[in-house]
Amino acid sequence: MSSATNVQSSANLELHDEEDPLRPYFDPTDHGLDNSFRLTHFVELEAGGLGTLWQPETVVQDELPSAAPKLGIPHDCSVIPLRRGFGWLVQTTGLCYPIIDDPYVMGKIACTKVLNNLYAMGVSECENLTILLGVRSGWTEQERDVVLPLMVRGYKRCVAEAGARITGIRSIVNPWCILGGVATSVCQQDGFIEQGNAIAGDVLLLTKPLGTQLALDAYQSIWDAESRSKRIKLTITEEQVKQAHRQAINSMSRLNSVAARLMFKHNAHGATHIGELGLVGHAQHLANMQKQELTFYIYNLPLIGHMAALAKDNGEANDRQLLEGLAPELSGGLLICLPRKQAAAFCTEIKELDGHPAWIIGMVTKGNRTVRLVKRAQHIDVKDD
Amino acid sequence: MSSATNVQSSANLELHDEEDPLRPYFDPTDHGLDNSFRLTHFVELEAGGLGTLWQPETVVQDELPSAAPKLGIPHDCSVIPLRRGFGWLVQTTGLCYPIIDDPYVMGKIACTKVLNNLYAMGVSECENLTILLGVRSGWTEQERDVVLPLMVRGYKRCVAEAGARITGIRSIVNPWCILGGVATSVCQQDGFIEQGNAIAGDVLLLTKPLGTQLALDAYQSIWDAESRSKRIKLTITEEQVKQAHRQAINSMSRLNSVAARLMFKHNAHGATHIGELGLVGHAQHLANMQKQELTFYIYNLPLIGHMAALAKDNGEANDRQLLEGLAPELSGGLLICLPRKQAAAFCTEIKELDGHPAWIIGMVTKGNRTVRLVKRAQHIDVKDD
Repeated sequence: MSSATNVQSSANLELHDEEDPLRPYFDPTDHGLDNSFRLTHFVELEAGGLGTLWQPETVVQDELPSAAPKLGIPHDCSVIPLRRGFGWLVQTTGLCYPIIDDPYVMGKIACTKVLNNLYAMGVSECENLTILLGVRSGWTEQERDVVLPLMVRGYKRCVAEAGARITGIRSIVNPWCILGGVATSVCQQDGFIEQGNAIAGDVLLLTKPLGTQLALDAYQSIWDAESRSKRIKLTITEEQVKQAHRQAINSMSRLNSVAARLMFKHNAHGATHIGELGLVGHAQHLANMQKQELTFYIYNLPLIGHMAALAKDNGEANDRQLLEGLAPELSGGLLICLPRKQAAAFCTEIKELDGHPAWIIGMVTKGNRTVRLVKRAQHIDVKDD
Repeated sequence: MSSATNVQSSANLELHDEEDPLRPYFDPTDHGLDNSFRLTHFVELEAGGLGTLWQPETVVQDELPSAAPKLGIPHDCSVIPLRRGFGWLVQTTGLCYPIIDDPYVMGKIACTKVLNNLYAMGVSECENLTILLGVRSGWTEQERDVVLPLMVRGYKRCVAEAGARITGIRSIVNPWCILGGVATSVCQQDGFIEQGNAIAGDVLLLTKPLGTQLALDAYQSIWDAESRSKRIKLTITEEQVKQAHRQAINSMSRLNSVAARLMFKHNAHGATHIGELGLVGHAQHLANMQKQELTFYIYNLPLIGHMAALAKDNGEANDRQLLEGLAPELSGGLLICLPRKQAAAFCTEIKELDGHPAWIIGMVTKGNRTVRLVKRAQHIDVKDD
């Protein structure tokens, strides 16, 4: 494929995306690639899935625990005062592997993931992003020439939505494809929201439904003749699986920027981005960060449509994780501690401004830095309008 | 190995390093690992070496060229004004694979590489570093528990030397070990040196000798019974190979911070860090960045001791690259455009403050944005005192 055609087809995809967020999925043959090309093809991958490979960013401890690679405390951003008193540096890095086959959409999701860490601090303005790319060594030159520009275009689209700019790309040839980035903001002390100010009586809000991984897995298994596929089809229809997949992709591509701005307006007491550790894992870290001794009670689980049924009936350990609040997300919502009085207004406004709801999923009480997912937590079956 | 022992032995190595920069090389059996453990063991690596895998950071272009992964113009740092007029953000990211087997020293080198990009802009104060780590999936838990804390300690040592701080570690499990980092500085406009102000009459200075890769390769081949090893031994002795190896490691671990400060004092007109593209490659990019149309003439090549002889006699294409100024460096010196009048003072002061010399290797004339390595360039055989 010539350079001109290549740039042209990327541009077309981008235009299409402007018209319709539910753009058609990536077909490698549209780009002159073999039908078997898959961005998510990790031949060397052992059981356990990609979720086991992600590591949240950690704060460096004075003494390193020996249980590497868990080298410290997971956090969303590093927040430090600048040397010369200009303000504060809020910075985050992200790294992930492709989990869907469309390079353009995957670029968007990778960028969303990075920016959502800033949004968790209430920071909705970003100085710059640097793209981090592991360029798969097994790709042919043709595959590289198709995949990388599409990824970067998806990434750029997301950056444009966020009103930010990309200032560099750092790439390395690697056995596996890696996507990631560094996002930096410099702001005054009143320009970010500290994470540790929750008090008893706060409510817990969540801005995206859970279950993207299960939705992606179920979609993958549509073409799978094995028993797993048959079990899935006994529970939900193929059309429902496709709906859930679209919903998951849209959710992962969506920036939490409106939530970040509303956190300021409604005096949020702290928030965190739901990622690799799942809802309960990240809630636990947020509870640990609180100045007061609190317990987070979670009694609602907003889930991508049909995923509750699938997780219950499917019987696989990975799937059941979802109902325990432990399923990893690549680019999830924000979990926000908000004064109870502000919660209704927050939910009304986010629905209006973002077009997507947020849910009150729990409450904060005096306690002992634990997270309690109540036994009969309600499963909220979330479907896109 | 227990956690306590592990931390203890790391601490001992660190102490040792304080006393003697030429610390003994990493012996895996000292840490309870198998004698065959090698940090640089890349079973999947094809011919061409690791140098072919590194990519310099690039500036994003409006239109992507199709020849991915070269997505733009290589640069040392991104330099942008902050949104709210607090000053300027100077930022760089680095990624590399281990090229030596000592995790502690490799951590130091990886960090040096990242910081040297800041120093190329004259920026000698850094807000923070984030470590990027690809944790090799093939490592046993024991190997991981030995290697990662040592790497991070080496990294921390370098950061302490630089007067900076680490604020995060982002890791991902990966088929190959990766080391890298993000370094950020916020400064006023007079806090960094623009790269494009060279004028005809400037001299070109270099702050480290070239040839680290050949020195590492030669050292590796000491234990190699093949013809290459025999050819090397006809040219230089085993003791000379070991000296060159030590010199290469010390050179790669050395920060260019003194050079950065002296660039300010002596009104440097621009500089770049010698990395993946070799001296001539990076000189070419620096020439391209100049506001004026200039040619860079290079007539001296400072080389690690005995490497000139080896490159001449060895007859392998990779080795001959060195004498063409094209051999990649992982963490090389700065190439600096300096007013001719200041050059002697710069060289005197860097030798005094740093303990290592810099060399006048060429001159800047009116021209056409090219780099000319003169045919009979003098090879300066550099040996550590």
